[in-house]
Amino acid sequence: MTTKTSKADQIGEDSLNKVTISCWRHRNILDLDDFSQDEISLVFEIADSMIDILSRKVKKVPTLRGKTIATMFYEPSTRTRSSFEIAAKYLSADTVSLDAAKSSVAKGESLIDSLRTLQALKVDVIIIRHPSSGAPYTAAEHLNIPIINAGDGCHAHPSQGLLDLYTMKRNLGSLKGRKVVIIGDILHSRVARSFIWGTRFFEVNLVLCGPPPLIPEGFKDMIGRLELNHVTVEHNLNKAVLNADVIMPLRIQKERQQSGLIPSIREYVQQYQLDQNRLYKAKPGVLIMHPGPVNEGLEITREVAYSSKSLIEQQVTNGVAIRMALLYLVAGGENK
Amino acid sequence: MTTKTSKADQIGEDSLNKVTISCWRHRNILDLDDFSQDEISLVFEIADSMIDILSRKVKKVPTLRGKTIATMFYEPSTRTRSSFEIAAKYLSADTVSLDAAKSSVAKGESLIDSLRTLQALKVDVIIIRHPSSGAPYTAAEHLNIPIINAGDGCHAHPSQGLLDLYTMKRNLGSLKGRKVVIIGDILHSRVARSFIWGTRFFEVNLVLCGPPPLIPEGFKDMIGRLELNHVTVEHNLNKAVLNADVIMPLRIQKERQQSGLIPSIREYVQQYQLDQNRLYKAKPGVLIMHPGPVNEGLEITREVAYSSKSLIEQQVTNGVAIRMALLYLVAGGENK
Amino acid sequence: MTTKTSKADQIGEDSLNKVTISCWRHRNILDLDDFSQDEISLVFEIADSMIDILSRKVKKVPTLRGKTIATMFYEPSTRTRSSFEIAAKYLSADTVSLDAAKSSVAKGESLIDSLRTLQALKVDVIIIRHPSSGAPYTAAEHLNIPIINAGDGCHAHPSQGLLDLYTMKRNLGSLKGRKVVIIGDILHSRVARSFIWGTRFFEVNLVLCGPPPLIPEGFKDMIGRLELNHVTVEHNLNKAVLNADVIMPLRIQKERQQSGLIPSIREYVQQYQLDQNRLYKAKPGVLIMHPGPVNEGLEITREVAYSSKSLIEQQVTNGVAIRMALLYLVAGGENK
Repeated sequence: MTTKTSKADQIGEDSLNKVTISCWRHRNILDLDDFSQDEISLVFEIADSMIDILSRKVKKVPTLRGKTIATMFYEPSTRTRSSFEIAAKYLSADTVSLDAAKSSVAKGESLIDSLRTLQALKVDVIIIRHPSSGAPYTAAEHLNIPIINAGDGCHAHPSQGLLDLYTMKRNLGSLKGRKVVIIGDILHSRVARSFIWGTRFFEVNLVLCGPPPLIPEGFKDMIGRLELNHVTVEHNLNKAVLNADVIMPLRIQKERQQSGLIPSIREYVQQYQLDQNRLYKAKPGVLIMHPGPVNEGLEITREVAYSSKSLIEQQVTNGVAIRMALLYLVAGGENK
Repeated sequence: MTTKTSKADQIGEDSLNKVTISCWRHRNILDLDDFSQDEISLVFEIADSMIDILSRKVKKVPTLRGKTIATMFYEPSTRTRSSFEIAAKYLSADTVSLDAAKSSVAKGESLIDSLRTLQALKVDVIIIRHPSSGAPYTAAEHLNIPIINAGDGCHAHPSQGLLDLYTMKRNLGSLKGRKVVIIGDILHSRVARSFIWGTRFFEVNLVLCGPPPLIPEGFKDMIGRLELNHVTVEHNLNKAVLNADVIMPLRIQKERQQSGLIPSIREYVQQYQLDQNRLYKAKPGVLIMHPGPVNEGLEITREVAYSSKSLIEQQVTNGVAIRMALLYLVAGGENK
Repeated sequence: MTTKTSKADQIGEDSLNKVTISCWRHRNILDLDDFSQDEISLVFEIADSMIDILSRKVKKVPTLRGKTIATMFYEPSTRTRSSFEIAAKYLSADTVSLDAAKSSVAKGESLIDSLRTLQALKVDVIIIRHPSSGAPYTAAEHLNIPIINAGDGCHAHPSQGLLDLYTMKRNLGSLKGRKVVIIGDILHSRVARSFIWGTRFFEVNLVLCGPPPLIPEGFKDMIGRLELNHVTVEHNLNKAVLNADVIMPLRIQKERQQSGLIPSIREYVQQYQLDQNRLYKAKPGVLIMHPGPVNEGLEITREVAYSSKSLIEQQVTNGVAIRMALLYLVAGGENK
């Protein structure tokens, strides 16, 4: 039959298999600093298919049927964990969720032993969040099954970096020459770091903005070995947002004040809150992003967070699509 | 083929679609005060089909395949939450359960932001329990997807009201002229309120019984705008149970004593406990109901709670069927 | 068609049905003291099929589709609970997990009432862990649906006993004449007790080794009515491990020291830790087992726990297969 099927129905094993053969070489998803430009493009191409699936009446494809995806979170999280679990279920995988703050961890079991047990339980992928930077790397060294880093300390959060980039690309098309501003606690933000790595192929003009203690001298050199010529630092928010295409304030942790890294919440708000007045200095069509959850009235006003320029909810939806793509790439391989 | 299929097999998309086209007009399930008589009958008709499904060897129909049902409980609950989750799974929906007491709520995220995130995660229905009366209404205003109220403060618990009514009807047939007695803390009971609204179409003689502080003067006027001519108040339990067809003691919260609303547990038991002696005054075939969990030896004796007259376990089973019907009505629509 | 299907594909309803008709007579799985030799062999035969399923690309069979398996854990556990949940999902059952430490148990609901509610919610099997010895027996008396004991106090843990035995058999073939040593707190170990019952058909030479207060005089008579001629007690570990085929140290609870049952952790380690030196006294091919989670450096050294002789991870995998077999046996019956 030569009947043209609708775009949504074209996404089957066959078409997905076609796109993956080219360049994918990761067993694990640990950070974006070792992603090639082709790999990022591949993730986005597959995510486009997943967005189509998410808009169907029946949001379920059999791709990962008979696979089990485990989430192991050593830090609380509703949105990231739910996002991965929902992504897994839309691909027909089963999920098992270990609340690492409780149960056997309470019995003093080490991270690696817990993960080895999961592997021996025959789960196919482990998604891990851990307060220590590097924990998912240690995990990956000891296991044979794919590890996805869902946030490790202040280090990396690759699926968030990918969804932020993907959201920008879906809204702006080419990112070439765009001015993108991230505001806040860049030093301690795994979201910012993974995003920075991800942007390096897209010829954006990336501006980091925040108080000097949160973007210290030499920050770019501190964070890694790769060249980051597209990144500049600007401590003055009013200057930073000038002609911006995209502005993404980060969640400010109130603990930073106690540790003396920001003078006071009041002063932070005065100097770094994204409000309507500061938005006027950006391009008229400026887009607002935020990794969530939003501290309304702190790093961003409610008005701006829920304005028509805000992509915050779109980021959440795109996050499901990106995570479906990542799970497909690391767990769907054997079906190919 | 003209082969007659068994009753259990008749319940397919087709027959279910046939019953729904008539009168259903709710996007959300918030309370029973805005249900029409036809809508309640429709829920019961579909619940009958669901009871058939629950008695099959394979208790699963594909009706909500590819849909995701989220439960978001800001108060602990095993039975209501499990009942909704099991109902969703029997309809082949996926479930995602957010323990709102933990995770991002701990990060200070507002109710509406949490719900908007769930919506952006592409869940299809949100089932919410919240200690504040009215919270699900606020939720429904801000979201595009169906909200089911699984209990809000002292206000409403519509699925419980429906299952209580449904249980009565399945056991008594017509409710016309039946004497139904609810005992206890009517003032603070969302179960009682939703039940009261639900009974208004069924020509029952509904008696509210409890200490005066828990059914204050003017209670009927307090709770709403609808006429409640079928409802009377009787503070004396011995009089209330006289010739009763159905008696439903409510769970008494021990905190009420501290707040001075009941004199002492001992005195409450003396005056309002449903025991075998009081049961003799009711009709011989009187039916005992309780929304659970039972405080044995407090509002009801163990003997009565587990007597042959008790419908308590049947209520639990009917609750699954009612919740399957509600999920079908709010989430199955797009398949029609 | 005469095409030979692969071994993995042969496991369908038909072949499984064939093996079960012979001897199975349990509704519940409470302990191994009432298992016949044929029943244990049957479990192992089905587990072999399940191991095949676990090695497939798509680890899912439709055997328990439309069944709901509930886990109700009154003690924390990651591995046993996850093992049962994963086992259920690989058989296509739905799972519902009640965290009994929270929710309605907090409302003072009794064990039996909670279980009756689960039964009325139409779940098909309840898996229960409880700190009180005997609790699952009480549960089984009050319910009509199968109960699986996932550990009750110091009494029994039958699925663990079966998986330990099964792991030994898969690695050694016949167990006849083999010397098997269990080390540690035999007195308080439900793992040890169920294992002891399970071994009685296999003509092993089972040695219990530990400090006298943890294997008191007359221990064998204390634990039951069955003959345990194959069991001996040896308090000296160096003697116990001599020519052993299998050694299984148990997790030592640090609380035992406070209760005076062991002199000090340091002394326990000195006398009862399984280390490389003691291993030399066993047979060259000796196998190391441990029910997990391991207290590294306490009852066993890291070196031994992760040596090539260690079956610890294999035990975990076999546990999934054994639990799939048990769920199949208690819940798959109606499909036969």
